Amino acid sequence: MRQAGRSLPEYRELRADVPMLAACRQPDLVCEITLQPVRRHGVDAAILFSDIVVPVAAAGIDLDIAPGVGPVVAEPIRDTAGVERLHRLTPADVSFVDEAIRLLVRELGATPLVGFAGAPFTLASYLVEGGPSRTHARTKALMYGAPAVWHALCARLAEITLEFLRVQVSAGASAVQLFDSWAGALSEADYRRYVLPHSAHVLSGLAGTGVPRIHFGVGTAELLRAMGEAGADVVGVDWRTPLDVAARRVGHGRAVQGNLDPATVFAPWPVIEAEVRRVLAEGRAAPGHVFNLGHGVLPQTAPEVLTRIVARVHAATAGPGGQP
Amino acid sequence: MRQAGRSLPEYRELRADVPMLAACRQPDLVCEITLQPVRRHGVDAAILFSDIVVPVAAAGIDLDIAPGVGPVVAEPIRDTAGVERLHRLTPADVSFVDEAIRLLVRELGATPLVGFAGAPFTLASYLVEGGPSRTHARTKALMYGAPAVWHALCARLAEITLEFLRVQVSAGASAVQLFDSWAGALSEADYRRYVLPHSAHVLSGLAGTGVPRIHFGVGTAELLRAMGEAGADVVGVDWRTPLDVAARRVGHGRAVQGNLDPATVFAPWPVIEAEVRRVLAEGRAAPGHVFNLGHGVLPQTAPEVLTRIVARVHAATAGPGGQP
Repeated sequence: MRQAGRSLPEYRELRADVPMLAACRQPDLVCEITLQPVRRHGVDAAILFSDIVVPVAAAGIDLDIAPGVGPVVAEPIRDTAGVERLHRLTPADVSFVDEAIRLLVRELGATPLVGFAGAPFTLASYLVEGGPSRTHARTKALMYGAPAVWHALCARLAEITLEFLRVQVSAGASAVQLFDSWAGALSEADYRRYVLPHSAHVLSGLAGTGVPRIHFGVGTAELLRAMGEAGADVVGVDWRTPLDVAARRVGHGRAVQGNLDPATVFAPWPVIEAEVRRVLAEGRAAPGHVFNLGHGVLPQTAPEVLTRIVARVHAATAGPGGQP
Repeated sequence: MRQAGRSLPEYRELRADVPMLAACRQPDLVCEITLQPVRRHGVDAAILFSDIVVPVAAAGIDLDIAPGVGPVVAEPIRDTAGVERLHRLTPADVSFVDEAIRLLVRELGATPLVGFAGAPFTLASYLVEGGPSRTHARTKALMYGAPAVWHALCARLAEITLEFLRVQVSAGASAVQLFDSWAGALSEADYRRYVLPHSAHVLSGLAGTGVPRIHFGVGTAELLRAMGEAGADVVGVDWRTPLDVAARRVGHGRAVQGNLDPATVFAPWPVIEAEVRRVLAEGRAAPGHVFNLGHGVLPQTAPEVLTRIVARVHAATAGPGGQP
């Protein structure tokens, strides 16, 4: 469960005096924060504590993560000169992630670690807008108005992302998640024209590593087919699309991940339990199903409820008749 | 085009010293603001200048519209006592809307006026959360945890909305739009269980008036079928779902409205024109098509571009071979 830390008092305590980017660059802290939800909830995999802008910052972009706002970019990128400011990423630029993952793999033992990176479109949106945007107006303006600049920017971001994930796999990550938070802002036609080739470059670049590649976005009802085609082994699905419907869309042989509505945790237990059972049942339509929320954990979530959900999923899938 | 005013200097000038709710309650101002985009762009219909919280405020809820934030409710509604604070709406409570529409109909002549109201779910979300919310966590918590309170709240909101739209039709509105901004936050199952009956109550309550009923939400790829079933004659579609796909989903005999991406206006003209042609072509799959943006006009839109888009649509649909 992504962002599970936000709901944990032990996470808030660790982060009290450490800004987000600083935390992402401190291997012992990354290790501890990544382990916290595993210890608490007994989930079957850990997901690397990081932020999607970490590799972009390591590639020379002056940015900060403002609490309550998100990434803020000092000088937005809107032309060729801006694209040039993004240098190639070398493993040395992100040695802290290599170190964190080596620590983690030792600590986790048999529990797999899922690596993590933002996808080119979402990274580009932050860089073009200068921060979070609801409309992505400047991003789309660049896409439509200067497609050569747009593709140059995304090609460079794809290289950076690919290198960042290669470092994670080399250090021991057992799977990777390519996270395209904002892809759902696009029509399928725009996604295919302006985004898919770049995400596909990242995902196909990892094909030789043999690790499963998870690709996730929010509000992607119309994009699931294309996101599968981008080269994912597992397509993450938000709660808006039932998993049996999603399984048909993502294409033969691909697994699905999801998709309990994160707000379900505020319901009484019988409602939660019924929803967990529904998600598990719908997930059986796919050749594989990674049970998860349909989006990140909401900060006001009671950790005890997450622990109970994990136990319920384990009970349903471990026994006879359950899904392995 | 909804919220066309936001991009007009003449609108900004009129609103400079008048808060949003005050503007909505001043018939001469409502009339003038509603007419501005018609004069500027030569569109085929006017849409009433209002805000979705206007009838809720008229029904006794203490709220304000904070610039840059949205509606802020002094005392959120989360229990039966809260629901009781919403009184029934009488025509006298919204006489300013009756008056504004009578003025407008005189001024508009042959140009039809589209009435406007927020749908029960979106109104309920503002009332339960106390303001805008990205996650609707408290709203869903009430839905799942206290369904009786939830349904009582939405039933009351449906009555208020129905009365508000009846006043608009009596005063001369030629069509109505029921606007469910946030419906896209729900799965189809939740929409059908918690929302559809209440929206259907509003829409079916207007069946006898003979005016076309438009129903619109954002991010509704998975909900279009259900929103058609709620009793719409026209289903508004955002830019994520192509209109030919939407036409199949909304069900036989229903028209579609939309769906140019509002960010397209920032593209060079040839790109805009190609998109306008695509939207018109895809719209031919439905028995009727109201050309529109797929969401509200973005404030930074150049008005000249909107005027040119309207002219382009007129040129494409007026001549031989065009769509009437």
